[in-house]
Amino acid sequence: MMTEKFPSRLLENAVNEFAKLPGIGRKTALRLVLHLLKQDVADVEIFGHSIIQARTEIKHCKICHNISDGDICNICSQPDRLPEIICVVENIRDVMAIENTRQFTGLYHVLGGIISPMDGVGPADLEINSLIERVRSGNVAEVILALSTTMEGDTTNFFLYKKLKDFNVRISTLARGVSVGDELEYADELTLGRSIKNRLDFESSLSQ
Amino acid sequence: MMTEKFPSRLLENAVNEFAKLPGIGRKTALRLVLHLLKQDVADVEIFGHSIIQARTEIKHCKICHNISDGDICNICSQPDRLPEIICVVENIRDVMAIENTRQFTGLYHVLGGIISPMDGVGPADLEINSLIERVRSGNVAEVILALSTTMEGDTTNFFLYKKLKDFNVRISTLARGVSVGDELEYADELTLGRSIKNRLDFESSLSQ
Repeated sequence: MMTEKFPSRLLENAVNEFAKLPGIGRKTALRLVLHLLKQDVADVEIFGHSIIQARTEIKHCKICHNISDGDICNICSQPDRLPEIICVVENIRDVMAIENTRQFTGLYHVLGGIISPMDGVGPADLEINSLIERVRSGNVAEVILALSTTMEGDTTNFFLYKKLKDFNVRISTLARGVSVGDELEYADELTLGRSIKNRLDFESSLSQ
Repeated sequence: MMTEKFPSRLLENAVNEFAKLPGIGRKTALRLVLHLLKQDVADVEIFGHSIIQARTEIKHCKICHNISDGDICNICSQPDRLPEIICVVENIRDVMAIENTRQFTGLYHVLGGIISPMDGVGPADLEINSLIERVRSGNVAEVILALSTTMEGDTTNFFLYKKLKDFNVRISTLARGVSVGDELEYADELTLGRSIKNRLDFESSLSQ
């Protein structure tokens, strides 16, 4: 497909753009664009503008760094959430996965990734300082480290534990009902719900 | 994922739009949108506009109904193509597949689909009348029926054969080097190239 000749430069442009997306090959990109060419102009304009608008207008919550339409996200702004419990997650997909379990009523802190030297991601690239600041300045009773149970997740958990252990907060981690090596977002809701209810003190999890 | 709570209405809109595409589920849609949120604003604007521009500005060639940037596509407007041979295909992906073999120097006719009563596609939904008009009015020596070797493709081949057999043209079909049941666009270039070189008279292909 590298030498493919497109009958239209406009078609080729759109296919090239789709093929930049992760997991979308050139054949799939062509199928998607040809599908869109058959849709109503108004629908395709809505599609295109929804993407641009998402990119230009979506903000990050000033408290937890979750994706948000406003300065403060709709979780941090709920009056019935417990601000003294902070659940630290890698990304917003994990926030959505935990919210779906309906087992957690505290707030979140979205790191924006995990420490991964192979991918060039160090502590300075993540929202770690802002987490420490939240713990330092707020009435935080507990920090739940809810990162994926991979080597990078364990590394990041341990890094955060060292940074937070001198504050007067409980540091817990998810019960290992989640299989080791699993990506958090693919865990079923029951397992994930149980593992957040049965969360362990981080220090006791080290000896297991 | 049906009860998923999105932290942002803008995010939800963009995910909903992506999830309308064929073969894109909601988890994939979310991944794609989150990927785009990390790209430069300018790149996302180029992406969105390339799709809208493709939909609003791409035309169909007035001769062969291939996708085109102008009124006449860049195949029909090539002076060194043989206008007396017309290769009838289902869609523009098949044009691209045959062009890639570099074995065909005639022109195309893009039907825009094949006869498929199950999908509610009848002869009137396809560019069949315009094909007959081309054969009637032009100096056409041969029509190659190059549809997929599926039941619907065979039905459409036979329908076209009946419409065209009284004109003074050779009606040929692709050599069945392509396995029966295969979608044309997935055939490898060598097989597809050979099958267009060794094309058969349609009547002789009926008895095989």
